[in-house]
Amino acid sequence: MTQPVAITINAGSSSLKFGMFSTTGEIAELAVGLVENIGAAPRLRVSFGAGGDRVTQDLSGYQAADHQGALQTALALLRDRIPDAQVRAVGHRIVHGGAAHAAPVQITAPMLDTLRALSPFAPLHQPHNIAGVEAAMALFPDALQVACFDTAFHRTHPKVNDMFALPRAYYDKGVRRYGFHGLSYDYISGELARIAPLLHAGRVVVAHLGNGASMCGMLGGRSVASTMGFTALDGLPMGTRTGQIDPGVTFYLVEQEGKTLDEVRDLYYKRSGLLGLSGLSNDMRTLEAADTPEAAEAIDYFVFRIRRELGALAAALGGLDAVVFCGGIGENSRLIRERVCAGMDWIGIELDRARNADNDMVISTPLSRVRVMVIPTNEELVIARAAHAFLSAGDGQAAAE
Amino acid sequence: MTQPVAITINAGSSSLKFGMFSTTGEIAELAVGLVENIGAAPRLRVSFGAGGDRVTQDLSGYQAADHQGALQTALALLRDRIPDAQVRAVGHRIVHGGAAHAAPVQITAPMLDTLRALSPFAPLHQPHNIAGVEAAMALFPDALQVACFDTAFHRTHPKVNDMFALPRAYYDKGVRRYGFHGLSYDYISGELARIAPLLHAGRVVVAHLGNGASMCGMLGGRSVASTMGFTALDGLPMGTRTGQIDPGVTFYLVEQEGKTLDEVRDLYYKRSGLLGLSGLSNDMRTLEAADTPEAAEAIDYFVFRIRRELGALAAALGGLDAVVFCGGIGENSRLIRERVCAGMDWIGIELDRARNADNDMVISTPLSRVRVMVIPTNEELVIARAAHAFLSAGDGQAAAE
Repeated sequence: MTQPVAITINAGSSSLKFGMFSTTGEIAELAVGLVENIGAAPRLRVSFGAGGDRVTQDLSGYQAADHQGALQTALALLRDRIPDAQVRAVGHRIVHGGAAHAAPVQITAPMLDTLRALSPFAPLHQPHNIAGVEAAMALFPDALQVACFDTAFHRTHPKVNDMFALPRAYYDKGVRRYGFHGLSYDYISGELARIAPLLHAGRVVVAHLGNGASMCGMLGGRSVASTMGFTALDGLPMGTRTGQIDPGVTFYLVEQEGKTLDEVRDLYYKRSGLLGLSGLSNDMRTLEAADTPEAAEAIDYFVFRIRRELGALAAALGGLDAVVFCGGIGENSRLIRERVCAGMDWIGIELDRARNADNDMVISTPLSRVRVMVIPTNEELVIARAAHAFLSAGDGQAAAE
Repeated sequence: MTQPVAITINAGSSSLKFGMFSTTGEIAELAVGLVENIGAAPRLRVSFGAGGDRVTQDLSGYQAADHQGALQTALALLRDRIPDAQVRAVGHRIVHGGAAHAAPVQITAPMLDTLRALSPFAPLHQPHNIAGVEAAMALFPDALQVACFDTAFHRTHPKVNDMFALPRAYYDKGVRRYGFHGLSYDYISGELARIAPLLHAGRVVVAHLGNGASMCGMLGGRSVASTMGFTALDGLPMGTRTGQIDPGVTFYLVEQEGKTLDEVRDLYYKRSGLLGLSGLSNDMRTLEAADTPEAAEAIDYFVFRIRRELGALAAALGGLDAVVFCGGIGENSRLIRERVCAGMDWIGIELDRARNADNDMVISTPLSRVRVMVIPTNEELVIARAAHAFLSAGDGQAAAE
């Protein structure tokens, strides 16, 4: 007796998140895990179902020398624990789907070429995603491969929000505000529709605050604006990324400081954000626990920029009915949520400090005109559902034949 | 009998604005004018006092081959018309005063070195300003020279608004959000204090919308936030400048399109903004009169970004009591003002369309919670007042000796 499953793969530069979901009937999580430090000192963590076992193990270098090795090692563990799993589909988080893709797609050979052709838009991320696809294709040649794009959810943006004020030819060739974290926003939109359909129909700002961070303005559950633009560098400050920065700073660093553009990119992506401002850490938990003025300023800046973007997105939405926090910081930092919402009565936010301290789902007061919520996000589930949907469609076709 | 006067000089890359003000008692405008197209096909325009004569003349190349020539030509005309003028002070608009200068300063030889040392922060503008200072020093060796900084008004920003999320050393060496158009904001703040002291004490967003454009959030008449940052490129889209743009676009243009950084800068400063989006013109009047979809999109984008920043600045201020429009577009475009304010009832704005169409000073309805105003700005007067203040202080010292 075999159990049909879908695998999810989310390949970062030196990490690989994966999940295994039963596709019998309703999609159900069997395991989710992570291989960190691929190519260096890799480490594997897996948890099996809600409330199930948790496994952590250090891997030797050869067990995860690259993404394919990491995936094989992870799958070997899953096979030990879930021996009857039969992988029928693999869903991939793909950072960039370009302007054309507003929904997941099946990854055929021509589609793989399309994904490769989008690499210039996301040179730091797309190649790793593609390596994950290639690894999965080699390991599961008979499984359906599905691409779920971080940009897709934002393709409902009005054009005015997708443009930069460049000569028009640049828009046509793809220099646009794509927006990212779309799988997370898609999940939150679905949860809102389920939990609070009236709010889902209204004007909602979702703050996905993790090591990467962005915000999304939604009308009727669809994205109309995002703080991230052409790349995952824009908008809010992040663990190690600058967020919004004057384009003139780049000219200054190259021309006055003699940096190469590679050095500037390295600075903007890896040494800035919370890490750069605090001089201490990219991890909000560390900064909250520290009592240095630099850590305090890093937190101040993070909060200030979130508040600024909250006002900006409210303007793009024509007002505000709800704010949803998600992501590692959004789901866990009482301090950040409290400081983002402090003095926001002008926009209709009244935080319930006790509920916020308890990490409740609704953390605004009963009388707050704007509902403030905390909803744990689940990008893996969105990917698994997409893979499941393609499987079901395929079965439907097969049945019709 | 001589008449003591102050000259004001505002030197751009290919233009020179100038003014002559009586410094007997209250400062009073005698003439203001402009030399355009310096070094190419220069043209001089001057108006004498409110409701006075207007003179326009094409100049030959040798009359305005450079800023000093342009200044000499302009002064020759002024000397013909106001023969008793004795120049006692020259006030200069200087784009960059760095982090240290929150007020005008007298330009001594060491101060001129300081201004030169700030050129790397504004390589496109500061050298022209300094050329204007040198020309004025040569022509009026006995006059007091005064620098009025575009950045000075914003030095009341809290640090959180001055920082970028870069490693802290960059802040210390001057990579900050300086903000510009400070002379205009200073003037508007003064006018508000005079016309509407209660609003001046509150939360005000001023939109300086001209060929250059920015917005400033003021609390109690002092700047707490601005849309412009390290350079005059950031924030709102402008006549030919991009405004806010993802830092990743620069990497893309250099690495994927093979542009040099000089070409990227030329693109961002001179071929983008309203001109780039419309493919037609950097002039809002031309775009409003055009009926192409491209011109409409350029206007849409301009309005969208202003609305977005209005929300962002309201968040930085903790709410909103008044909005003031100024600058060429802000003072004259009914359409832009109407579209910026449309559907902004969520923030308390209710525009009076008839008053807006009439270009009244107050263009919100009597019941609008947020007052919306149009106040013509006057940077030259701010410069002249500063020069006058230094003259008076000097006279005071002289009298005390």
